[in-house]
Amino acid sequence: MIRVFTSARILDTGRGTDDATRVVDILVDGMKISRIAGHVDPPMGASVVDASRYLVTPGFVNAHGHLAMTLLRGLADEVSLDVWLHDYMFPRETLMNGDDIYYGSLLALAEGIMSGTTTFAEMYFFEDDVARAVNEAGVRANLSTGTASLDNERGKLEKSEEFVVRWNNKADGRIRTSFGPHAPYTASPEFIRENFERARDLGVIVQFHLHETRKEIEEFTATYGASPISYYADRGYFENPPRLLAAHCVHMTARDAEILRDAGASIALNVQSNLKLGSGIADYRLLLGSGVNLCVGTDGAASNDNLDMLEELRVLGLLMKGSTMDASGISNASLLAMATANGGRALGFDDVGTLSEGAAADLVFWDLEDESFCPRNNVVSHLLWSANSRAVDSVMVAGSWVMEHRQLLGIDIDKVRFEVARRARRLASG
Amino acid sequence: MIRVFTSARILDTGRGTDDATRVVDILVDGMKISRIAGHVDPPMGASVVDASRYLVTPGFVNAHGHLAMTLLRGLADEVSLDVWLHDYMFPRETLMNGDDIYYGSLLALAEGIMSGTTTFAEMYFFEDDVARAVNEAGVRANLSTGTASLDNERGKLEKSEEFVVRWNNKADGRIRTSFGPHAPYTASPEFIRENFERARDLGVIVQFHLHETRKEIEEFTATYGASPISYYADRGYFENPPRLLAAHCVHMTARDAEILRDAGASIALNVQSNLKLGSGIADYRLLLGSGVNLCVGTDGAASNDNLDMLEELRVLGLLMKGSTMDASGISNASLLAMATANGGRALGFDDVGTLSEGAAADLVFWDLEDESFCPRNNVVSHLLWSANSRAVDSVMVAGSWVMEHRQLLGIDIDKVRFEVARRARRLASG
Repeated sequence: MIRVFTSARILDTGRGTDDATRVVDILVDGMKISRIAGHVDPPMGASVVDASRYLVTPGFVNAHGHLAMTLLRGLADEVSLDVWLHDYMFPRETLMNGDDIYYGSLLALAEGIMSGTTTFAEMYFFEDDVARAVNEAGVRANLSTGTASLDNERGKLEKSEEFVVRWNNKADGRIRTSFGPHAPYTASPEFIRENFERARDLGVIVQFHLHETRKEIEEFTATYGASPISYYADRGYFENPPRLLAAHCVHMTARDAEILRDAGASIALNVQSNLKLGSGIADYRLLLGSGVNLCVGTDGAASNDNLDMLEELRVLGLLMKGSTMDASGISNASLLAMATANGGRALGFDDVGTLSEGAAADLVFWDLEDESFCPRNNVVSHLLWSANSRAVDSVMVAGSWVMEHRQLLGIDIDKVRFEVARRARRLASG
Repeated sequence: MIRVFTSARILDTGRGTDDATRVVDILVDGMKISRIAGHVDPPMGASVVDASRYLVTPGFVNAHGHLAMTLLRGLADEVSLDVWLHDYMFPRETLMNGDDIYYGSLLALAEGIMSGTTTFAEMYFFEDDVARAVNEAGVRANLSTGTASLDNERGKLEKSEEFVVRWNNKADGRIRTSFGPHAPYTASPEFIRENFERARDLGVIVQFHLHETRKEIEEFTATYGASPISYYADRGYFENPPRLLAAHCVHMTARDAEILRDAGASIALNVQSNLKLGSGIADYRLLLGSGVNLCVGTDGAASNDNLDMLEELRVLGLLMKGSTMDASGISNASLLAMATANGGRALGFDDVGTLSEGAAADLVFWDLEDESFCPRNNVVSHLLWSANSRAVDSVMVAGSWVMEHRQLLGIDIDKVRFEVARRARRLASG
C-alpha cells in the first residue's frame, strides 16, 4: 500500500533540536516513510489523503509498563509501593490466566492507541498471550517476562529465554523481545547477571526496575553493603553489558548516573507512578545533566492509572521545571524526544520515534481544530502543554491504520471491555 | 423546567468523607436539586431522562484564573514568572480591547465546560465584557478586575468597585463579583488594605495573588522588612477581614498558614502554573495540616496551558503524595472536595460543589462507557486518576444545559475559534 498525505503539518520530535513544524507531503510506502517534501507526486495507484487539518507526529514510545495491569486499575490509591505490590497486586496476579492477560493487554493497547502511542515496553507474564494481543492490535512492542529469583518456580529464566527466541522479530518485525529480571528486591544479583549474559548472547535488551524507592536501596544495602547499581558495577555486570533499560531510577547518586551512562543504559522515567505511590521525586538536574538516554513510561494502569503518554510527559516536564525551580531547564523539543526517539532507541527500534525518510511509518494525526490548539500561537507548545487525547484523530503503525477517525481497527473494543469487566470482577473478589 | 434523571450513579464530592457512590433518581426543579432518592416519582410535565450510563458529579469550581489569557496560550514556555509577565504578558495585554477579552473568555469557558467545570474565578480586565461572556455561556463565575497601585492609571479602585456593584448577583445569581488587588509586587500594602475595606463594606470577596515566588517574598521583605502575609497581619489587615481568596501560596511558613486560617481565608492552589514557571513546590504537609480551606485553580491558559480542572487536580494529588513521599497523605475524597465544595465556599457560592437536596443544579455527566472507567473496580478512583475530558458527556449549570452530548449550547464555538485566532495573530505580531 502506498499513501500520500498532502499538506500535513509535521513535527519531527526525534530531532530534539528545535520547535519548528513544517507543512509537507508525506509518502508512505509499505511500512516506511519513503519521502517527505514540499510536494510529492503521487505514484500510480497511491491513495492520496488531504492531511491539512492535522499535526502529524511520530507515535509515542511508552518505555515502561505492564499492559494487563489494566485489570487491577483503581484497587489501591493510598498505599506505598511495597504495600501496593504485596497486599494488592501479587495476590490477584496469582489468579490470572492467559486469557485475562490477553484481554487486559488489549485494553491497555487500545488506551495507548487512543492517546497516540504506537510502541510499548512490556514486562509481565503469560507473554505469549501478550504477543497475541500486540500482533492483533497492530502495534509495536518489546515484550519481556517479568522474572524473579526469589520465588519457588524453577526454570523461569529458561522459559523467559524460550519466549525471547520464539517471538523476537515476529509480526513483521513489530515485536521485539527482551529479558525482564524484575527488580533488585525480587531478583538476586546473580540472577540479574545471568539475565544480562543471556541477553548479550542473544542480542536483545534487558528491562528491569531499578532504584525505585529509598526502601529498596536501604534494604539492598543492608544485605549487600552497597546500593544495587554500585554493587552490580563493582562486580563487573556493566562491563560489556547488553542494551539495558532501567525503569524508575528515582533515587540516584551522581556515581549511579555515571555508571548507567557509561554502560550505555537508558532510563525509563515513570513520574506519575512514582508520585502516586509516594516513591519520591528524582533529582532532575542530575539526570538531565548525566548524558543517560532518558525516556518516558506510564508504568502499569494500576499505579498511574492510565496509559496516556501525553499526560505522563506533561507531568514529567512540569516536575522537571518545578522541582528544580528552573523553567528553562528542559525544552519542549527535548521533552518530546524523550517520549519518542529516545524510547525507540531504548527498546531497540532505532527507526522509530522520528519523522524522516526511511523511518518507520508510525504516525499520529492530531486534530488541529481541537480547542486545545486555539489560537495557534505555537503548535508544538499546544501539543505538549494544552492538548489531550481528545485531539488524537488517527494512528498508523508500520504503514497500516490502527485507529482511523477515532475508530479502532485491530481491536474489538466492545468485546474487550466486556471481557475485562467480567474478569476484573473475578479477580477483585479474590 | 423540571427534570428527573433516573438510575444515575452519583458522587457527592462535597462531603469529602468517603468514596462511595450511590445509584439514585435526581429531581431538578428550576435552578436547584430538589430531591435525590432511590426512586423519585416524576411530577406532572417533568422531563424524564435515563442517566444509568453516567456518573453524575457536581461541576468543578475553578478557583483561580484569568479567562481571556487563552489568547496568549503558548507564547513563552521556558521562562520564569517575572520574565513571562513583564516580557510576554503585559506588553500584549496593553493591546487588548473589550472584544478580545469577550472572545478569549468565551474560549476559556468553552474549554472549562468541555472538561466539567461549571464555576469560574476570574481576575483580569474589561470585566464587563467577561460578564457578558459568562452570562451568555450560562455558567457561574465570580469576577474581579485585576488592579495594581503601581501603575499610572487613576481611579482604578473606584472603577473596580463600580463593576462590583454593577454585576453582583446578576444573571439569575450566576455572577458574583469581587475585588482583585493583583499581588504584593504590583499593589502597595495600603492599596491592598483599601480593597479589603471596600470588599468588607460591600460583602464581597477579595481575590489576590500571594506568596507565589521566592523572589516576590524576598523583594517585598527587602522593602518592608517582612513577608507580605506577616506585614499585612502585623498591621491588622486580617482583623475582621472580608472573605479572602489567596491564589498560589507556594512559599509559606507555619505562621503564614496560621494567619490565613485565623482570617478564614481560602487558598487556591495552581500547581501546574507554579511548576511550569519554576515557582516551586509548596510544603503540602504544612498546607494540608493547616486547616485553611484549600481549593484548586488552573490559573490562566498562558501558563497552564489549558483550563482542565481534572488534569489540574490529578497533578496536585500526585504532587501532594510524591513531594511528601506519603501515598496516604491525601484521600481521593478530600481531593475531589477541593475541586468542588471548597471552591464554591471560597467564591461565595455556598450551595455549589455538592450534590444534595437544595444545592445548585450544577451537574457533570461522565460517560461510564469510556475506556478510562474500565474495569469498574472503583469509579471514584477512575474519575480522579484515569479519566480525562473525553468522558465528559453533558454539563448543566443552574438547571440548564450548557453542553448536551458534547454539543455546547450557549457558545458558538466555531465563531469563537475564528475570532480568537484572528485576534491572537494581531496580539502576537505586537
